Amino acid sequence: MLIFFVNLQQISNRRMKPLILISNDDGYQAKGINCLIEMLKGTGDIIVCAPESARSGYSRAFSTTILTLKHRRHEEYQGTTIDVWSCSGTPVDCVKMAYAKICPRKANLLIGGINHGDNASTNAHYSGTVGIVVEGAIKGIPSVAFSLCDYSDDAEFRHMEPIVKKVTRKLLQDGLPRYVCLNINMPKEWNGKIRNCRMAHGHWRNEVDECEHPSTHKPYYWMTGYYQNDEPQADDTDAWAIANGYCAITPLTADMTADFKLDIQQ
Amino acid sequence: MLIFFVNLQQISNRRMKPLILISNDDGYQAKGINCLIEMLKGTGDIIVCAPESARSGYSRAFSTTILTLKHRRHEEYQGTTIDVWSCSGTPVDCVKMAYAKICPRKANLLIGGINHGDNASTNAHYSGTVGIVVEGAIKGIPSVAFSLCDYSDDAEFRHMEPIVKKVTRKLLQDGLPRYVCLNINMPKEWNGKIRNCRMAHGHWRNEVDECEHPSTHKPYYWMTGYYQNDEPQADDTDAWAIANGYCAITPLTADMTADFKLDIQQ
Repeated sequence: MLIFFVNLQQISNRRMKPLILISNDDGYQAKGINCLIEMLKGTGDIIVCAPESARSGYSRAFSTTILTLKHRRHEEYQGTTIDVWSCSGTPVDCVKMAYAKICPRKANLLIGGINHGDNASTNAHYSGTVGIVVEGAIKGIPSVAFSLCDYSDDAEFRHMEPIVKKVTRKLLQDGLPRYVCLNINMPKEWNGKIRNCRMAHGHWRNEVDECEHPSTHKPYYWMTGYYQNDEPQADDTDAWAIANGYCAITPLTADMTADFKLDIQQ
Repeated sequence: MLIFFVNLQQISNRRMKPLILISNDDGYQAKGINCLIEMLKGTGDIIVCAPESARSGYSRAFSTTILTLKHRRHEEYQGTTIDVWSCSGTPVDCVKMAYAKICPRKANLLIGGINHGDNASTNAHYSGTVGIVVEGAIKGIPSVAFSLCDYSDDAEFRHMEPIVKKVTRKLLQDGLPRYVCLNINMPKEWNGKIRNCRMAHGHWRNEVDECEHPSTHKPYYWMTGYYQNDEPQADDTDAWAIANGYCAITPLTADMTADFKLDIQQ
């Protein structure tokens, strides 16, 4: 009986195309996600569920008890194997919504991006695009975030196509270890080489800019600043790789347990 | 000259009280944060900068380029060593705002909480309270999140006082390794014992609830569901510790690099 079941399963797997779920934090209309869709056409069944507008810096935020969510199907791709939805929530809401209400089966691969701008180093903590793939790792879906280190709305994503296709094929074939996801950052000018990296240690400086309201003369604030790499000489980090023209692959784990014990008397 | 400088520094340190920065994700008026302030009165100079209303599930989100921020000083504590501010942003915005615009010097300790509800296991990813202490770890401030596994607005926080005071003293004295922060979860009914734990692996199920709008009859959605511990037998996890009456101390690292390399041909 077991053998019969396994055979049926194999037949069913052979017939079924892989299901690729795509989201981002720049919104479903962003150039990056639409370039990604073009690159992956024909690779499998593609479902897109992305925020209805930009949600940069949303990290792993999701809508708890205060806000209701809506989603909307976009008809432009009807009749193809690409199914595009937008959702009123955060990037992580989009993954949860697609997983629970849109995908007909568990996705074989979850892709975040292509992000407009650098998500390497500790910036991965703030990124909604990385939030998407951490959510995927928690859900047991092989997940990868792609970012191009160019913030412009009209960035040129074409040179990412070989790496996107190669990584997609690899992950559909081999998957990833449990709780691991990938954070891939491509420099604007690529030297054609790839490096496996670790997350660079660094932090933001001068993060809060004070302005004066023109009428009330009261202060208000913008989040701003610049990123400081705390270990610029370390050539095994993603920040170093990008600064030196490499495409950086940073494996991240959703298990954040540190190797430390608090020695405290009971 | 160097010796003279060091001596001056020592004198200055001896005179200066430790500075404790406090934030949360339930808002500055929540019972949990106000109980925490009461517990720590007299321990040092205390600055509170917390969201103006509840921001549960905000993770490490911060306000990027779209929203401006405001903050407001609350006068109730004037004349004491406690300085309370609210901020219109996310929990992480509160830390950034306090760090850049309110604190007269770098805080010696950053505390998130006391949170109304469980932030153990993979829920640490979504928690704004944990977001606060990851931000602290990135900034090189010893940081600890306290949560009580009771979601009610009027939860009883009194039995957390010994652990809050003990951990605060310990961290002010010894600090924490770079990039490490603590996530401490207290069960509603405590057995009086503490356990160092790892983050339990688990995920949410049935996360999206569909409703019908009474007028338009269109669907809308609530994020909801229940948490499933994927390793309920593992007695070294925070989820197990809490379920068995222990206070769980989970050390987290802000360096999320996984022990994995993608084997991909260039």
